[in-house]
Amino acid sequence: MASEIDGVRALLTGRPRPVGWAERRARIDEVAAVDAPPTDIAFTATTIAGVPAEWSEAPGVDTRRVLLFLHGGGYCSGSIVSHRTMASRAGQAGGMRALALQYRLAPEHPFPAALEDARAAYEALLAQGIAPADIAVGGDSAGGGLTLALMMSLRDGGRPLPGCAWLTSPWVDLAMAGGSMDSKDAEDPLIHRGYLEELAAAYRGSTPAADPLVSPLHADLHGLPPVLVQVGSAETLLDDAVRIAGRLGAAEVPVRLEIWPRMIHAWALWAARLTEGRQALASAGAFLRQRGGG
Amino acid sequence: MASEIDGVRALLTGRPRPVGWAERRARIDEVAAVDAPPTDIAFTATTIAGVPAEWSEAPGVDTRRVLLFLHGGGYCSGSIVSHRTMASRAGQAGGMRALALQYRLAPEHPFPAALEDARAAYEALLAQGIAPADIAVGGDSAGGGLTLALMMSLRDGGRPLPGCAWLTSPWVDLAMAGGSMDSKDAEDPLIHRGYLEELAAAYRGSTPAADPLVSPLHADLHGLPPVLVQVGSAETLLDDAVRIAGRLGAAEVPVRLEIWPRMIHAWALWAARLTEGRQALASAGAFLRQRGGG
Repeated sequence: MASEIDGVRALLTGRPRPVGWAERRARIDEVAAVDAPPTDIAFTATTIAGVPAEWSEAPGVDTRRVLLFLHGGGYCSGSIVSHRTMASRAGQAGGMRALALQYRLAPEHPFPAALEDARAAYEALLAQGIAPADIAVGGDSAGGGLTLALMMSLRDGGRPLPGCAWLTSPWVDLAMAGGSMDSKDAEDPLIHRGYLEELAAAYRGSTPAADPLVSPLHADLHGLPPVLVQVGSAETLLDDAVRIAGRLGAAEVPVRLEIWPRMIHAWALWAARLTEGRQALASAGAFLRQRGGG
Repeated sequence: MASEIDGVRALLTGRPRPVGWAERRARIDEVAAVDAPPTDIAFTATTIAGVPAEWSEAPGVDTRRVLLFLHGGGYCSGSIVSHRTMASRAGQAGGMRALALQYRLAPEHPFPAALEDARAAYEALLAQGIAPADIAVGGDSAGGGLTLALMMSLRDGGRPLPGCAWLTSPWVDLAMAGGSMDSKDAEDPLIHRGYLEELAAAYRGSTPAADPLVSPLHADLHGLPPVLVQVGSAETLLDDAVRIAGRLGAAEVPVRLEIWPRMIHAWALWAARLTEGRQALASAGAFLRQRGGG
C-alpha cells in the first residue's frame, strides 16, 4: 500500500523538473497549492509597506497575535499562492492570524531586497499597534533563513524582536557544507546541490556565501527569541536544521529541534493529504501558542 | 541578584574537585542529593535481576508504566542516592513509576558490565508482565549513552524495544570530538576533557572509543523508538547532544532536541532549587506521557 508521503513524492516527480525561473515559479505554485486550504479560513489580499501580502484568519483565533510568514522557494520562487495552505494552517494551529508576505524575488531582486521587504512588513505591523511579543515570524526553506536574517537585522538595529520564530526545513548555509547535502541526495526528491548553487548565486550576487545575513549559520545568534526548527529525515537540508539548532543553542537561544522520519522538504505544504504535515503544524502551533505573545 | 543557576554553580565549585574514585563517588552523592525529593513520592528499595535498584512512585501515577532510569556519573560514579531527585521527579512528571538502577561501575566493572545490568533489568521488567511500550528508558550523561546502548543491544538481539527514550546531557562520544568540548570549556563547571578521558579509559578498557556500544554516536541507530534529547547551552557535552540528535534523525528515529540557555550538565539534578530543572522535567514528562505507553 502506498503511503501518504509516497503519494506526495509521486506528485513531485511525475514530470521533468522545470528549467527557467518563470517555469519554476509556475510549477511550485501548481504542485504546492494542489490542495485548497481549509474552507473555514478567511483570506484577504492586502499590501503592507508597499509589499503584496495576504491575511488569513481561522475562526476563533486571537486577532491581536500575528504570524508573519516568509515562504520558501530559494529566494527565487514561491508565493502567497504556493504557500497558502502552509501559512494559513500554521496561523490556525497557532491560534493567530497569519500574514503571508510576497517579498521580492531574485534574480530580478537579489539580496537584500527580500530582507528589506520582510523588515518593512514587520515594522508596519508594529506601526499598526501589534506588540512585538505578539508577533511570531516563520517560514520554510529560504523563508527560514530569511526569518533568522530578519531577526538579526532587527537586533542589530536596536528594534524590538518578535516573540518567537518557527523554521521548517530551513536553508541557512548558502555554501551547502552540510554532510546531508550528499548523504541524503538520493532520498530527497526536491533539493539538490546544483539547484541550490544556482539559487544561491541568483540571490546573493556578489555577497559572500559566508555573510551572516544570507547564511545565518555563520551569524552571531545571541539575543534571539525562542526558535522551533522542524526538518524531515529525507532532506539534503537536514544538516542545515541540525547545525542551526546547535548554533542557536550555543548562543543561548532557547531552541527545539524536531526531526520527522521519512518527511521531505517542507512537507507541511501537503498537510491536506499528509498526516505528518498536520502533526508538524500542530506541534508548531503549540509552540507558537506557548512562546508567542505575552 | 544571583540567579538560581549561579547558586547551583556555587554549590558545585565551592570546594576543590575530589581525586580518586571513592572520593568522587562520595562527592556526587553529596552535591547531587543536596535537596530531598518531594515528600509525597514513595521509595522502595529492591533488587531486579540481581542488581540493586529503587522504585519511586508519586501519587496518582499509572503503575503499569515504568521509567527505567540509568544514572550518570561517567560510568564510574553516581548512584540511586545521587540521582534520587532526578529519577523520581522524572517518573512523577511522566505519570509513571521510576526504577532507578544501581548498575555496576567502572573501573572495578568496565564495559560491558553496566550494559549487562541494564539489559537484565529491562528483561526482568518484561518478565514481570510490563509491556515494552509501557517502558521508557532514560538517563543523564553516561546514563544517556547507556540508554542508547541498551536499545541497540535489544534491537540487535531481536528483543522488543521500549516505547521511548529520554536522554538528558548525554555522553555519546568517548573520543570527545565535539567542538563544544573546547568552546564551552570555560563555561562548564563540571565536565572537562581530561576528566572525561580518565572516565572513558576506565570504562571502555580495551574496547575502542569508536565502538558503537560505548560511543553510540557511531552506531547504526535505525529502528529505535522516539527519543527526547535535552542539553544545556553551558555544557562541553552540548555537541554530543546536537550530534546524536542529528544522527538519530538521519536514521529515521523520531527525535526532539531541546537546548536550554545557561543550563549546566544534568541541571535537573537540582530541580528543587532550579526553575529550569523543573521545567525540563515537565517537558520530559510530557514527552513520556505522549510517547511512552500504548
